[in-house]
Amino acid sequence: MINKLIKEITQKNAPIVVGLDPMLNYIPEHVQKKAYSEFGETLEGAAEAIWQYNKAIVDATYDLIPSVKPQIAMYEQFGIEGLKVFKRTVDYCKEKGLVVIGDIKRGDIGTTSAAYATGHLGKVTVGTKQYSLFDEDFVTVNPYLGTDGIKPFIDVCKEEKKGLFILVKTSNKSSGEFQDKLIDGRPLYEIVGEHVAKWGEEHMGDKYSYIGAVVGATYPEMGKVLRKIMPKSFILVPGYGAQGGKAEDLKPYFNEDGLGAIVNSSRGIIAAYKQEKYANFGEANFADASRQAVIDMIEDINGALGH
Amino acid sequence: MINKLIKEITQKNAPIVVGLDPMLNYIPEHVQKKAYSEFGETLEGAAEAIWQYNKAIVDATYDLIPSVKPQIAMYEQFGIEGLKVFKRTVDYCKEKGLVVIGDIKRGDIGTTSAAYATGHLGKVTVGTKQYSLFDEDFVTVNPYLGTDGIKPFIDVCKEEKKGLFILVKTSNKSSGEFQDKLIDGRPLYEIVGEHVAKWGEEHMGDKYSYIGAVVGATYPEMGKVLRKIMPKSFILVPGYGAQGGKAEDLKPYFNEDGLGAIVNSSRGIIAAYKQEKYANFGEANFADASRQAVIDMIEDINGALGH
Repeated sequence: MINKLIKEITQKNAPIVVGLDPMLNYIPEHVQKKAYSEFGETLEGAAEAIWQYNKAIVDATYDLIPSVKPQIAMYEQFGIEGLKVFKRTVDYCKEKGLVVIGDIKRGDIGTTSAAYATGHLGKVTVGTKQYSLFDEDFVTVNPYLGTDGIKPFIDVCKEEKKGLFILVKTSNKSSGEFQDKLIDGRPLYEIVGEHVAKWGEEHMGDKYSYIGAVVGATYPEMGKVLRKIMPKSFILVPGYGAQGGKAEDLKPYFNEDGLGAIVNSSRGIIAAYKQEKYANFGEANFADASRQAVIDMIEDINGALGH
Repeated sequence: MINKLIKEITQKNAPIVVGLDPMLNYIPEHVQKKAYSEFGETLEGAAEAIWQYNKAIVDATYDLIPSVKPQIAMYEQFGIEGLKVFKRTVDYCKEKGLVVIGDIKRGDIGTTSAAYATGHLGKVTVGTKQYSLFDEDFVTVNPYLGTDGIKPFIDVCKEEKKGLFILVKTSNKSSGEFQDKLIDGRPLYEIVGEHVAKWGEEHMGDKYSYIGAVVGATYPEMGKVLRKIMPKSFILVPGYGAQGGKAEDLKPYFNEDGLGAIVNSSRGIIAAYKQEKYANFGEANFADASRQAVIDMIEDINGALGH
């Protein structure tokens, strides 16, 4: 999957990922109304609105982008009905040839981590049968519990040729509370980064490891250091756009081969029609606004990188 | 909910929680066979087997215990069908008067954490309607992303009078890789513990905070320090029994009022019938074996505590 991700990034010349994080208040009123008229103001109605919204955005952008990153929390907040749409979205994006990064930030230990890995990347055995479940290509994972928590995920990744992005330095303001604490003069995120590099050696693709890292766009100085600590790890970079990260800040996240990072934008793409810049598309053409926002994002990033 | 938890613990004289973490290989063959004969070797079949297993154990133990802790990963590994049984289990346990701790170890930032909080503790708004989703009483949360990640959970907890157990020092062997790292001479878990105490002040019950901590039974010396750092936080203690924690190790997790901790056992209770000690019950009477294991656990812990 890391090889496929790199191939898609290279062919489309677009080191980006679109975050499919639907909030009901992002979804144009006509989409919501239609869904509620069919299913009522119910969880099924909300799920249908999210599905129609996602599908329109994917249909309008899939030829330009290598990857999507659905944030499972936005689906889980609608319970079972929401999780059904999460699954439907994953399946649809895979049909469209996209690499799907499930932003699930799970993390536990032993058989429990193994169970998460099974549910999201692997297959579960029932009697003599095996079943795929959510079946993303990559998932994000939290490292706080250490190697015991990560290894069961890597084991399933090896079996399925899938991958992980492990939280190292997150994009939010308070991420420093624990992640920046100095240990023998070095911040915790560097120690975690070293572990990611080590874990990554266990599961290498052609040029990069299947085991990547999450490093926020909002901390480019730290991105520079982490790039060196984890030379073979792809970095998933949240925080571009809406969260304040700028294209010129992204350079340190890439290697000299022009690869090594994939930049996420969620709201900036999926709710583009709400921005003044794209207001001319009108709410009815929200998906076209998203397509234009993708084109602009690719140009912005490639410009800054000199690609 | 923290007041209810304390009331139940006191009335039943049982500072314990039963971890409902069903693995298919824990479930007696006759239960699995019956489920497969009805639903086939399908995800529905697995879900039915898990449900019958959980129900039998809850029916056999609910009058003795204050609380259960279903581990969502064990359900999520069966996808949507598994999550339906998770929800069914939560609802059933609440009907039986039990306090339900959803062991979900979620953690993200801002609106994403808020979405998890909504899905597990709160209500989602669809048009003019509101819906409860998984609706646990407490959930476990991962602190790696800092205050930005925790606050949205606390906001929902305040509204719903529900609570959290935040990972501080986990019970696994490699938990020290990051959690024990020294920062100005003090381990990270102490810094996290201080934050839990501070966060807890924002949402107090009568005697204890709604915001508790997870500290593994396998590290009693650390438990002793953390008890002092977080005097008003309830401590959820995993690692007793199967993971190696002993009753005499549990004393430091309790305050002088005899309260302040709740000890979890999962496999040791739900798969008790597989232990030599309870083999005389026979596989057919697995739930009776679980009841006996609960009685023995309470006696073991109260003995060590001098309750």
